[in-house]
Amino acid sequence: MIQHLLSASDLDATAATLILDTATEMAAMADRDVKKLPTLRGRTVVNLFYEDSTRTRISFEAAAKRLSADVINFSAKGSSVSKGESLKDTALTLQAMGADAVVIRHPASGAPHRLATWIAGSVLNAGDGTHEHPTQALLDAYTLRSRLGEIAGRHVVIVGDVLHSRVARSNVVLLDTLGAKVTLVAPPTLVPVGAGAWPADVSFDLDRVLPDADAVMMLRVQKERMGEAYFPSAREYSRRYGLDGPRMRRLPGHAIVMHPGPMNRGMEITPEVADSARSTIVEQVANGVAVRMAVLYHLLGSVK
Amino acid sequence: MIQHLLSASDLDATAATLILDTATEMAAMADRDVKKLPTLRGRTVVNLFYEDSTRTRISFEAAAKRLSADVINFSAKGSSVSKGESLKDTALTLQAMGADAVVIRHPASGAPHRLATWIAGSVLNAGDGTHEHPTQALLDAYTLRSRLGEIAGRHVVIVGDVLHSRVARSNVVLLDTLGAKVTLVAPPTLVPVGAGAWPADVSFDLDRVLPDADAVMMLRVQKERMGEAYFPSAREYSRRYGLDGPRMRRLPGHAIVMHPGPMNRGMEITPEVADSARSTIVEQVANGVAVRMAVLYHLLGSVK
Amino acid sequence: MIQHLLSASDLDATAATLILDTATEMAAMADRDVKKLPTLRGRTVVNLFYEDSTRTRISFEAAAKRLSADVINFSAKGSSVSKGESLKDTALTLQAMGADAVVIRHPASGAPHRLATWIAGSVLNAGDGTHEHPTQALLDAYTLRSRLGEIAGRHVVIVGDVLHSRVARSNVVLLDTLGAKVTLVAPPTLVPVGAGAWPADVSFDLDRVLPDADAVMMLRVQKERMGEAYFPSAREYSRRYGLDGPRMRRLPGHAIVMHPGPMNRGMEITPEVADSARSTIVEQVANGVAVRMAVLYHLLGSVK
Repeated sequence: MIQHLLSASDLDATAATLILDTATEMAAMADRDVKKLPTLRGRTVVNLFYEDSTRTRISFEAAAKRLSADVINFSAKGSSVSKGESLKDTALTLQAMGADAVVIRHPASGAPHRLATWIAGSVLNAGDGTHEHPTQALLDAYTLRSRLGEIAGRHVVIVGDVLHSRVARSNVVLLDTLGAKVTLVAPPTLVPVGAGAWPADVSFDLDRVLPDADAVMMLRVQKERMGEAYFPSAREYSRRYGLDGPRMRRLPGHAIVMHPGPMNRGMEITPEVADSARSTIVEQVANGVAVRMAVLYHLLGSVK
Repeated sequence: MIQHLLSASDLDATAATLILDTATEMAAMADRDVKKLPTLRGRTVVNLFYEDSTRTRISFEAAAKRLSADVINFSAKGSSVSKGESLKDTALTLQAMGADAVVIRHPASGAPHRLATWIAGSVLNAGDGTHEHPTQALLDAYTLRSRLGEIAGRHVVIVGDVLHSRVARSNVVLLDTLGAKVTLVAPPTLVPVGAGAWPADVSFDLDRVLPDADAVMMLRVQKERMGEAYFPSAREYSRRYGLDGPRMRRLPGHAIVMHPGPMNRGMEITPEVADSARSTIVEQVANGVAVRMAVLYHLLGSVK
Repeated sequence: MIQHLLSASDLDATAATLILDTATEMAAMADRDVKKLPTLRGRTVVNLFYEDSTRTRISFEAAAKRLSADVINFSAKGSSVSKGESLKDTALTLQAMGADAVVIRHPASGAPHRLATWIAGSVLNAGDGTHEHPTQALLDAYTLRSRLGEIAGRHVVIVGDVLHSRVARSNVVLLDTLGAKVTLVAPPTLVPVGAGAWPADVSFDLDRVLPDADAVMMLRVQKERMGEAYFPSAREYSRRYGLDGPRMRRLPGHAIVMHPGPMNRGMEITPEVADSARSTIVEQVANGVAVRMAVLYHLLGSVK
């Protein structure tokens, strides 16, 4: 197994499937009320967060604790980092303190890759800039598999601000690895320049692609971006790219609706859709813990 | 036993007494240096705090850890909550992550009740707006019982800003359940409109009620409220409703002085009183851990 | 063994050597992948931090967790402390909650000493104002001993803002206890008035003392002090008291370069020096965990 998980492209189909299978076992144990495994006893997992993300931090923390690891939370705010300490010095410090794994969230794309060059333990990318968020892609794949039976051959539609979305990027890579077909739907100004080379189709017409989708994945709108010139108005965005009840009913009967959370209800998704039987949003959160347990298990557990 | 602890009124005399008896056992074990019980191993307790309250958070954290639970702290500041996520979505997220109990502190009265409608685990109200703070009432009852032998028939005087005090509200309810007599002493502008219907007497004259009290409970003055029109000046408040040495000596010899902390020394209580032998303020803190262990034990421990 | 560790002067040579020997065993166990000892199971260590210091807090947290203690982090920001609660009331609260040890970082010199008068458990000074930081001195002594074989008779040069440095102060005391010779090198305005009475020489000429040094310890420059009148300009400071490659080459071949971190690369130390084979900066961090385990072990572990 790999040492680090920096990008969805670190995983070939075999490795990704092994993680999903392990996550299935983790979830099954939780269902049988086996809530704590001794696998990582004595190992230390550091959550190194340069951006606030309580949701992701808690998910990794819960996963590590269920494997009996010690967890240390390091918020870069108000730390020596804010006094100008370099990422490298922080990395060397954490390693010297005996961190077996560092889970990093960072606003700069590529920061986890640099971290991995300095660290003897494992680095897990928990979201870097607009680049990648590989455990999110894994939990989405887990959700797709558990709901649709298999991923290969399925059609997944990803909708929204693809340009700034690390969730979209990691999902496109992993879904391609696992044999799914992906269509990106976004306002023209929010499609990345190089997206033509991605293993995905691009469309600007959500209503047209929905009848052929097995799953539709709504991206979170970053409200702080709404004022920027290339961004449609909230009203326009919601009207053309938001998922409401009538639009949801264009989906085939078996299709599911996904969202990485936290949602802007009324913006990219309406409450009717978010709370419908098609919605897997809460399931995705639960699957996130099982998937992160599986990743920690494989990255750390196999090492002596 | 009940699933949630949202209000002191969730507890009848039998349930409240069972919690106090269990807390007595917890405290006795700590005295025998049995500091850790395996009861909640593998269970996850989330501290969900929308207001800063280090004291209450630490008390719950210490209690949960002594029962071997995993504890995850979630401060709403800087989280997706501050990006506008609804309490419901936060609740569903925590539940999906496997929270067995959520301890919630929230500025809005009633928030824990709403949370309980969305959560399969237990919800513990750690203070909601001006409404309730039931574990505070339980630790106060525990303190009264351990100092005075029994609660039924005792006379407890609660002094201060009753209008805004969740501590007062929960205490009035629980003390009535347990058969104590309560007198509220407050400036006329700080008595709740409906207090006439509460199972408590109301007085504006502290000196008059003290000679008949078995315990006097001083409420914390919220300094940020002092500027408001209905609030007496600090000097006036302190002179009429503060507890100083001469006033303390009006109490019967056996009577105790309580305060939920943190104190404003010199405002509602003088150092002479706070540090006197009658003061149970430090004891209350210690009792808080034992009582919260007992609550977690009964709410979580009996569930499969 | 002592109950508290407030100052380096609490340790005579025997006690200091015992801690260093224990730290050696702790480090050896970690090397053999024995990462967790049951010594402090059921004990609670509270990190009470009135100043941000993620690095020191994490080091203590990792040390305590490897000894199986429960750790509770208490940041004074946004707590009842910021609402004006006194240190004494905070201390009594933590003690009542069952804290077996309180690790305190405080901006006021002497705060840990006051804390120790109110607490039945152990108090560990993790840095108080410009006064002391004894575990830093211990980890520096550990590093010196492991690199140079022994401390007695060695010559240690401490360079920088000695006036404001608790690291310098604790090191001077402990190094004298252990028989080393110390020379302080600082701008004249940054030498403490009483330094003439310290067991250390004072010099203003770094280049002159380096050829005779076994170790040179660079102090961190507090950038927020740079604007003050008695402080040299950054350029001047760096030119006269910074350690760069040419200056480092004036050291004897066996001499080491130390820094407590976090570094201001380019100010008091250049990257060439920080990353050189002489640099023990990362080692010091690792040694910090072992030393703090040893301190916690002796202060807490021997108590029933």
